[in-house]
Amino acid sequence: MKKNKPLILVVNDDGIVSPGIKFLIEVMEKIGHVFVVAPSLNRSGASHSMTLSTDIFIKKMNNQDNYFICSGTPVDCVKVAVSKLLPKLPDLCVSGINHGSNHSINSLYSGTLHAAMEANIKGVPAISFSHLNYSENINFDDLEDIITSISQKVLDYGLPKSLTLNINFPDVPFANMKGVRVCKQASGYWDEEFVKTQNKQSKIFYSIRGQFICDNTEKNTDGWALKNNFISIVPVSFNSDLPLDINAINYLVNDF
Amino acid sequence: MKKNKPLILVVNDDGIVSPGIKFLIEVMEKIGHVFVVAPSLNRSGASHSMTLSTDIFIKKMNNQDNYFICSGTPVDCVKVAVSKLLPKLPDLCVSGINHGSNHSINSLYSGTLHAAMEANIKGVPAISFSHLNYSENINFDDLEDIITSISQKVLDYGLPKSLTLNINFPDVPFANMKGVRVCKQASGYWDEEFVKTQNKQSKIFYSIRGQFICDNTEKNTDGWALKNNFISIVPVSFNSDLPLDINAINYLVNDF
Repeated sequence: MKKNKPLILVVNDDGIVSPGIKFLIEVMEKIGHVFVVAPSLNRSGASHSMTLSTDIFIKKMNNQDNYFICSGTPVDCVKVAVSKLLPKLPDLCVSGINHGSNHSINSLYSGTLHAAMEANIKGVPAISFSHLNYSENINFDDLEDIITSISQKVLDYGLPKSLTLNINFPDVPFANMKGVRVCKQASGYWDEEFVKTQNKQSKIFYSIRGQFICDNTEKNTDGWALKNNFISIVPVSFNSDLPLDINAINYLVNDF
Repeated sequence: MKKNKPLILVVNDDGIVSPGIKFLIEVMEKIGHVFVVAPSLNRSGASHSMTLSTDIFIKKMNNQDNYFICSGTPVDCVKVAVSKLLPKLPDLCVSGINHGSNHSINSLYSGTLHAAMEANIKGVPAISFSHLNYSENINFDDLEDIITSISQKVLDYGLPKSLTLNINFPDVPFANMKGVRVCKQASGYWDEEFVKTQNKQSKIFYSIRGQFICDNTEKNTDGWALKNNFISIVPVSFNSDLPLDINAINYLVNDF
């Protein structure tokens, strides 16, 4: 167990004003020394994108030395944090809490998860938190203990190299959550709808909407776990060909 | 073998004016009926991002019914192509040719590869082509036969479900290429440099540059293959936990 306070990087994808990141900052400040680098705008759906065609800016928030906004993507936020802003490599990176699901194939599009994965590439144990409720008015207070417990375990025992934890909370009150399950990612797809918004100068404008279809209900998948009111943890690797042994991280959830 | 001409979707990430996509269109027009939907701007580094916060537009190029630009990301291009523009699901999607490497961990950031993966999610066999030479003046002519051969094999025999081919060409003249290897993805990382460009209104602006470090030289990786002048093919899955059997696609390269 470390005597010194750990250094924790907090990021997200839907921007600094999101209630989800505000709650996560509050929880992490009780565990360690917190640095925040969050997108200046909502960057939902940013996946692992980075900004190559334009410059990005960073700006201190409220004149504090450890709170920054960044005009780039969630991955840019992590890169600039590690390269320019943090005094040393952090002991942990937590991303979120995202307002909306990042389970199943949503993990591919998620800026929340990919910010955490970028930290993992830099050698930092990393966790992505998402809640299946999309409302910004949701009260996260009851999740403090479980988030603290998982984060503290990762700080104490680390994670297998190349593995980022993709954690999703089901959309039920905490009292109705049945526990925590380490899962495989379910399969699924988005059934998109392109809604025409205008037609101008031979350009047709569309708004992309859609409905997520989870077509896999196997018992050990995150789709199944969440549907059955379990908190799901999927270990995700940035090496596309790494064989994943989900039992390797069972110690995280043994007491839930 | 199909009697009717196959329908082929051509996409890329660095935009409609890139010589790489122009060459790929020419090659595909000899094999099938081609639809092009390419980003209106350079979208290098777009990964699997999609546009949720603003509308996107599409516009016909040269008043042709099968050539479009799209203001969105490479993944948006594929989504709008499948949902709105194509007469039916295409028989093949090819993405590229990217001017620059998409091997090793670059696959995570690549808009070229992720456009192909999005097509694969939609049920379309898909191939991403990248060349390790970053110059826009490179002459691709000698690659026509190998690109045609691989594309035709995928059209004839298909690919295992959930697998997209990530193909990279080494930066040597075709005569010096030693053959084709089906590989695992090498590990590696970007050593970024954030170059300060201006300081304005308490914002510090940076340009992100960097150097790619391939820290893995195992013989069956794409990093090794390309360093030794082989064309590399890495099968990539959009299901993070699918065990990959690289031998399953050896039929693609048996005669090279």
